[in-house]
Amino acid sequence: MVNNQKIRVGVLGSTGSVGQKFIELLSNHPWFEIKELAASEKSAGKKYGDAVNWILPTPLPSHIKNITVKNCEPNLNCQIVFSGLDSNIAGEIETTFAKKDYVVVSNSKNHRMDEDVPLLIPEINDNHLELIKHQAYGRGMIVTNPNCTTIGLAIALKPLLDNFGLESVNIITMQALSGAGYPGVSSLDIVDNIIPFISGEEEKIEAEPLKILGQLTSGQVQNAKIKISAQCNRVAVVDGHLECVQVDLKEKTTSDEIIKAWKKFNGEPQRLKLPSAPTNPIHYFEEENFPQPRIHRNIDKGMAVSIGRLRPDTLFDFKFVILSHNTNRGAAGGAILCAELMKAKGYF
Amino acid sequence: MVNNQKIRVGVLGSTGSVGQKFIELLSNHPWFEIKELAASEKSAGKKYGDAVNWILPTPLPSHIKNITVKNCEPNLNCQIVFSGLDSNIAGEIETTFAKKDYVVVSNSKNHRMDEDVPLLIPEINDNHLELIKHQAYGRGMIVTNPNCTTIGLAIALKPLLDNFGLESVNIITMQALSGAGYPGVSSLDIVDNIIPFISGEEEKIEAEPLKILGQLTSGQVQNAKIKISAQCNRVAVVDGHLECVQVDLKEKTTSDEIIKAWKKFNGEPQRLKLPSAPTNPIHYFEEENFPQPRIHRNIDKGMAVSIGRLRPDTLFDFKFVILSHNTNRGAAGGAILCAELMKAKGYF
Amino acid sequence: MVNNQKIRVGVLGSTGSVGQKFIELLSNHPWFEIKELAASEKSAGKKYGDAVNWILPTPLPSHIKNITVKNCEPNLNCQIVFSGLDSNIAGEIETTFAKKDYVVVSNSKNHRMDEDVPLLIPEINDNHLELIKHQAYGRGMIVTNPNCTTIGLAIALKPLLDNFGLESVNIITMQALSGAGYPGVSSLDIVDNIIPFISGEEEKIEAEPLKILGQLTSGQVQNAKIKISAQCNRVAVVDGHLECVQVDLKEKTTSDEIIKAWKKFNGEPQRLKLPSAPTNPIHYFEEENFPQPRIHRNIDKGMAVSIGRLRPDTLFDFKFVILSHNTNRGAAGGAILCAELMKAKGYF
Amino acid sequence: MVNNQKIRVGVLGSTGSVGQKFIELLSNHPWFEIKELAASEKSAGKKYGDAVNWILPTPLPSHIKNITVKNCEPNLNCQIVFSGLDSNIAGEIETTFAKKDYVVVSNSKNHRMDEDVPLLIPEINDNHLELIKHQAYGRGMIVTNPNCTTIGLAIALKPLLDNFGLESVNIITMQALSGAGYPGVSSLDIVDNIIPFISGEEEKIEAEPLKILGQLTSGQVQNAKIKISAQCNRVAVVDGHLECVQVDLKEKTTSDEIIKAWKKFNGEPQRLKLPSAPTNPIHYFEEENFPQPRIHRNIDKGMAVSIGRLRPDTLFDFKFVILSHNTNRGAAGGAILCAELMKAKGYF
Repeated sequence: MVNNQKIRVGVLGSTGSVGQKFIELLSNHPWFEIKELAASEKSAGKKYGDAVNWILPTPLPSHIKNITVKNCEPNLNCQIVFSGLDSNIAGEIETTFAKKDYVVVSNSKNHRMDEDVPLLIPEINDNHLELIKHQAYGRGMIVTNPNCTTIGLAIALKPLLDNFGLESVNIITMQALSGAGYPGVSSLDIVDNIIPFISGEEEKIEAEPLKILGQLTSGQVQNAKIKISAQCNRVAVVDGHLECVQVDLKEKTTSDEIIKAWKKFNGEPQRLKLPSAPTNPIHYFEEENFPQPRIHRNIDKGMAVSIGRLRPDTLFDFKFVILSHNTNRGAAGGAILCAELMKAKGYF
Repeated sequence: MVNNQKIRVGVLGSTGSVGQKFIELLSNHPWFEIKELAASEKSAGKKYGDAVNWILPTPLPSHIKNITVKNCEPNLNCQIVFSGLDSNIAGEIETTFAKKDYVVVSNSKNHRMDEDVPLLIPEINDNHLELIKHQAYGRGMIVTNPNCTTIGLAIALKPLLDNFGLESVNIITMQALSGAGYPGVSSLDIVDNIIPFISGEEEKIEAEPLKILGQLTSGQVQNAKIKISAQCNRVAVVDGHLECVQVDLKEKTTSDEIIKAWKKFNGEPQRLKLPSAPTNPIHYFEEENFPQPRIHRNIDKGMAVSIGRLRPDTLFDFKFVILSHNTNRGAAGGAILCAELMKAKGYF
Repeated sequence: MVNNQKIRVGVLGSTGSVGQKFIELLSNHPWFEIKELAASEKSAGKKYGDAVNWILPTPLPSHIKNITVKNCEPNLNCQIVFSGLDSNIAGEIETTFAKKDYVVVSNSKNHRMDEDVPLLIPEINDNHLELIKHQAYGRGMIVTNPNCTTIGLAIALKPLLDNFGLESVNIITMQALSGAGYPGVSSLDIVDNIIPFISGEEEKIEAEPLKILGQLTSGQVQNAKIKISAQCNRVAVVDGHLECVQVDLKEKTTSDEIIKAWKKFNGEPQRLKLPSAPTNPIHYFEEENFPQPRIHRNIDKGMAVSIGRLRPDTLFDFKFVILSHNTNRGAAGGAILCAELMKAKGYF
Repeated sequence: MVNNQKIRVGVLGSTGSVGQKFIELLSNHPWFEIKELAASEKSAGKKYGDAVNWILPTPLPSHIKNITVKNCEPNLNCQIVFSGLDSNIAGEIETTFAKKDYVVVSNSKNHRMDEDVPLLIPEINDNHLELIKHQAYGRGMIVTNPNCTTIGLAIALKPLLDNFGLESVNIITMQALSGAGYPGVSSLDIVDNIIPFISGEEEKIEAEPLKILGQLTSGQVQNAKIKISAQCNRVAVVDGHLECVQVDLKEKTTSDEIIKAWKKFNGEPQRLKLPSAPTNPIHYFEEENFPQPRIHRNIDKGMAVSIGRLRPDTLFDFKFVILSHNTNRGAAGGAILCAELMKAKGYF
């Protein structure tokens, strides 16, 4: 694809931590090209390099530095906008953009539970994209990426649901600092410490997988009938959410069968060889002390889910440990994969 | 009590991390006086100050520095020995001391499950001390202190068991580094990381509470009939184990009733005003993000259990968060409290 | 002293991190009693327990919780105000209080370099209190506590200056997170990282010791003639600033002589047995890897300076390592010691 | 180059942390191919995958897993051996290999100061390779890579020496955990802490740059006449040594001139486009709070040195901050670059 044929994209909330991750991942994207960066009033009008407090190890590309930041208004010269907006303003802005014919792919929570908005994990529910037909945005549309913790969990659950049926899921998380944005968690709250609470997080994890794993019937998603309980903790890890999970299955099975189901799991992103797709959505580790955040978070471009320690449980059928990268797979990377799927499926 | 009337005590495994904590806590003890320090071959014969790599913030008292370390053989001039021995040698050595008429109070796992050995948490099962009568050690005896994670858990569970009945308990831990001893966990394994595995720990947590919470009938402990599932993680916290717990109760109740039960809970150590007893064994916090290890681990001399976030659960009846200090309440401090109880009850 | 004879004190900026430390240290003070808490507009009128986000491990005393926070205006019912105000507002407010006859003891930088304001370290320059006579505040007065890093440094330097003369001082710091206040440093900036820059800090360290170590002549402080160079780094340590120091002395001497000078050093706080005074202002460690922040910061109530690793240097005469607690000795504790000295000397 | 034409290499001490880094960096090397892995008695005979506790985030390549580990004896089927041996055994083993015609490129300290052994930083002293002619090892030879801290320092100093002359250098380090190997530093010694001491490190930093920056005259290295003072600290950073440096220059100059000298600095690795060479050996940052370990350590494959905060000093002429990756540039990566230079220059 010649460079000037790339699809023009913009980033809303481009100076925030999710916005920066969007820029990092889109900078050398084979299909998409960053043409517009939008942010709040106080950044608008400045060169991006002057407006941003760039916190990522990857150097800020120089052609990005010189882009002039605009307001989050629908006069951007691009086809897709990736939204990393704060949830207290994201809802309305994203609606405005969709109404003006933009393809909105959002990492914010606001529209996730809208009846006509796909809550999309491309490996799991690509067929939910049909919901877009029911949207009232003309040529515009809104697609959302789930909560960072939900994504790793839902990918691990999907093969269990498909192969053995799923009754209930218990999850306790140890979540990374980057999940709270920047400046986010004060260092005085987390060095030599744990915070056993993340505002609003448990509710999202208990609700979102039901929609993602739901069936699309007559243009509506019927939520999966699974009981989920979540407890969330913030720990002193930079990137990578670790989750201790227990499940009750509908059918009896063995650890070997489960591992086999995980290993062979893949979906449309793998079949379509989408640029951001992991080769294998799930990596299973036999080592008794794996996965670990610092060691495994970047596997397969940070887009795969690592699982380990599967074993029978005394209260549930099985227990195991999940790790997934919360800003790659769990935020910007996941949203870009959504856009790639939409492009490949001809949605724009 | 005049100084020379204090009870003479010794510490086995005195140079290790638990041994050091014993020394710290016994240095100004009103009833006990350190007279003997024993350790492995390579320390024996040296002044303690030369043998030890003292890792505690409390300065090593100078009268302790000059004690000559002896071998772990039953020729120590003391009545009680506190054992912080490594479990690969503790079993036999402790038996040898008991046979030679020493009172052995051990933090090691070896004798915990012996039929005639109390697995003692003084607030919970002081009556289990009667098991000592069945020991075949003459005037000697062995009493054990439970696993560091078990202690916080069992104290939180006891009021639930007594007031509402207990069906099942699910626990996921985030455990401090000091629980692994010294040098213990490599810094390269834990900075910016979590290890989702602690060897042998889950098994102990699933088994020990059943004995501790069991009924003493005809000189035997009948294990409590509770199903427990445990998952353990090591995190970058110096001291203080945090535990996410879920419970199914036999009777319906409310959060208010449970909090009331926790707040009024106390036991023999409080009634007898034992020197190491916390004023309140349980502190309940209303703040939604408490308890936290660095903030609350030292409450009530590090001997109390902090609880917070009690709320109804979707899979179990209730869920909540526990914090307890793993080397004070959970190791040396707990063992010393056992010895205080035994003294107050006339066991020696 | 009967309770109702205690001196009534207030805290300005009482909800901030330094303000909280003042409250912690003053809660059971034998001479002072907290009667007033003042803070910004948005806290004024609330109960302190509702206004503050209490971040200290020591529980907030209940009688403090119920004090109603006032504005920082000079209508407080107390004799002394301790100021933990932010430096962008501290200067004017403190002047206003002094003019209204309050004794102002400030931890803020604003008045530190005023010609007529003592920059006080009670062990070093108690005679600088005479500057107060030259203040134009009537019965009111302002005394300041130096920068947190300066304090440890100046205490270590004073015996060198007095015994051997001091030419030049080179200092590289590794400073704790609590020095930046709360929320202060973002966790994403410091986990697995170092920030080699602290705004304005190097300038303070290069200037303040010259005034502190200066001679009072005819009512004026003549700055000490020492050349100082400072480089400052922020590290992932909760409390305790570590400083690598090199010095050129005027006279030749030996390590033994220097250690002797440090060990015998003390001042008015020790002679007067002030309540917050450390028994020994300086603790010297022979261990090659001491002092360390987590191990030694709380020595002598966190009010002593720990020194170690003294050895000859190839570029300077000697080099060594200093540790001092930045919020006890370095902020609130140091300021309270100043007030104790002033009381003992009859300044109020 | 066809695969079977690659140069066969072996790694001594292959299971250690430096050995693992060698394997990581050599796994896809365009010129070298790992054919032999050697380690201690207790690993010899095992498959490498079974013998090693692999601690790196990069997955262990499967073709490496199946290599059978051999003893460190000179019967390996390869031309070059990279040595990551522990210094208490490295000296003799390396000599043995050199005598048996192997090219030994070592990261250990043992032979660094041998008169006839190059202490090589390819950008600085490639001409020191001539020393090899004076070695008495027949076709074999020994070349050494400097200490991890020395490398970053020497690269920063070289342009200063060449352009302005260098009188003296003062350096205080904050060194990463990976520099101590595995398990290395206990987590209990470093979480919420700093250790102001690293055994033997200051001596190496004060000595090694003198040889590296020395002139080769009549087959001998004349040490550079520079006075160096070093103080070393261990901090809770995984990778990347940060160094606060002060220098006295022979000629007066400006910050701008120095930055210009750093930016244009390069050497043989850049001219020869060696595979492991950084594009620019030195990156200078204008931001007042850069460089930082977590952000900048991986710049240019972890093979470049990052510098920032250059400013005039009160005691020296200038001060600045250096960061370099201690296991890439500072250990295995640096040694591989040495071998690449030797190959390109025809030494084997």
